[in-house]
Amino acid sequence: MKGVEPAVPLRCSALSGARVAIVGLGLMGGSLAAALKKRAACAQVIGIPRRPETVAQALQRGYIDHGTTDLEEGLAEADIAILATPVRTILTTLPRLGAILPAGCLLLDLGSTKGQIAQAMNALPAQIHVCPAHPMCGKELSGLEAADPDLYVDKTFIVSPLLRTQPAALALAEELIRALGARPRRLDARRHDRLVAVGSHLPYLLALGLVSTAEEVASEDVLLWEIVASGFRDTSRLAASDVRMMLDVLMTNSGAISEALDRFRERLETIERLLQNGDEAALQRVIEAAAIRRNAAFRGRGAQ
Amino acid sequence: MKGVEPAVPLRCSALSGARVAIVGLGLMGGSLAAALKKRAACAQVIGIPRRPETVAQALQRGYIDHGTTDLEEGLAEADIAILATPVRTILTTLPRLGAILPAGCLLLDLGSTKGQIAQAMNALPAQIHVCPAHPMCGKELSGLEAADPDLYVDKTFIVSPLLRTQPAALALAEELIRALGARPRRLDARRHDRLVAVGSHLPYLLALGLVSTAEEVASEDVLLWEIVASGFRDTSRLAASDVRMMLDVLMTNSGAISEALDRFRERLETIERLLQNGDEAALQRVIEAAAIRRNAAFRGRGAQ
Repeated sequence: MKGVEPAVPLRCSALSGARVAIVGLGLMGGSLAAALKKRAACAQVIGIPRRPETVAQALQRGYIDHGTTDLEEGLAEADIAILATPVRTILTTLPRLGAILPAGCLLLDLGSTKGQIAQAMNALPAQIHVCPAHPMCGKELSGLEAADPDLYVDKTFIVSPLLRTQPAALALAEELIRALGARPRRLDARRHDRLVAVGSHLPYLLALGLVSTAEEVASEDVLLWEIVASGFRDTSRLAASDVRMMLDVLMTNSGAISEALDRFRERLETIERLLQNGDEAALQRVIEAAAIRRNAAFRGRGAQ
Repeated sequence: MKGVEPAVPLRCSALSGARVAIVGLGLMGGSLAAALKKRAACAQVIGIPRRPETVAQALQRGYIDHGTTDLEEGLAEADIAILATPVRTILTTLPRLGAILPAGCLLLDLGSTKGQIAQAMNALPAQIHVCPAHPMCGKELSGLEAADPDLYVDKTFIVSPLLRTQPAALALAEELIRALGARPRRLDARRHDRLVAVGSHLPYLLALGLVSTAEEVASEDVLLWEIVASGFRDTSRLAASDVRMMLDVLMTNSGAISEALDRFRERLETIERLLQNGDEAALQRVIEAAAIRRNAAFRGRGAQ
């Protein structure tokens, strides 16, 4: 199988000696850079954002040691390269990297969906060590301004190693993840995409549908916006997510999302049927089970 | 029309001289008692919870001046009586109050739905001044332990005066609301119930459906609970609401809720159709509009 045995070992097998180049310095990439620097976890952090102003800003905040908007320059000496852009930017960047990355480099990404990225990484030359990944954290804010060196602390950080991913490469990826304060968790790309469709993309679509419905109702009765309270605020929060990021997520996981929506609709119809039939005992059981389940899921995870 | 002209004036037309009796010392009633005491807004606060331990706890915290579990005793000298229990407890309590409340007493409630309560209040004797109300605030926590003297600060507080509600009674109700730090807003019961179906009950049902769906998926792949992050946490928060309160809300507003669900389903289907057809430009417009709308709705309202 092409690339199962990379021709070369890792350029650097310990994080402490590694030059880490991060492509994209938004919330996720910026926070990752900041976390590495705060913990002095590696030899050098190189930032490769789109705009020169972001280079200046990241340098000024001490989030990177060196910055450039030139992908080739920034990656030329990278021991570890991390793609921290929206999913479809990762997908268009990946095919270029075979000619750019030094042999033995470890290549990770932070993309929110993993199927298409895993495929594109599989197509890279064997001398690049690849490991798709996805940190399970974020905020509805975006950009370097929102970066936080502790964003990853205590968070689950998925790695989806490919068949070609060598144990040493996976070990280095997981060392980096632990250095951020996060918990690495191995999960294959397909299973990841099915689970995030339910755990992340469904909540987003519900928030989107809620705001969209409210907008329609408010166009008939503008008082709606005055009566919405903290419940609406929390439930709709994800609708304020970064537009480009979410568009990429939805467009690259539409199959699994469709399944998640089907399941949700079925559950919602069951609930509505109980309500309309006045089957209060059954409705109460659903409500009680959800309250218990919801609280159990986040117990001991800080802010509820 | 029965009761349009109450036979008697208000027992007390200024809040500062009023004895305020609160039936129910959970999150809402307890916070209201605490707010009145903190601001020294009235002459006396009487608490009427279900359990003697709650009387002791409320006295100990200084949230009430006097407490009893006996409804008749607690309401005997009330100038203002406020029902702060779940909606259907309000509905079963109201018919008893004609024989209990002193003539000229102002009767308010904090129930989350207003249609059935307005009807039941209309059936009370003319010497009771009635004014249905509903504060647009809350937490997913319940009970006196969660009470907060500032819960109402800067919140919208709906009053739904009936035809029989006299200007002086409405003025006293609004004086009390302002004394809590809240903003009174007049809204008829029917319109209130339609708006909260979209702004409060729909978000709750989405959270319930989301947790219910996740539970089902987790029964096949338990890893789901490990990958849920802050987005799921926020979107599902309302599923942890007080069970009894929500059951009452749903059962007393099922008509308006059904309409809200229909509208939501239609919006969600539109969004899914755009996604499955790959109509990215249209999908992007929906996403952008929702992000802008969501942020505008909560701008300047504190935590987003």
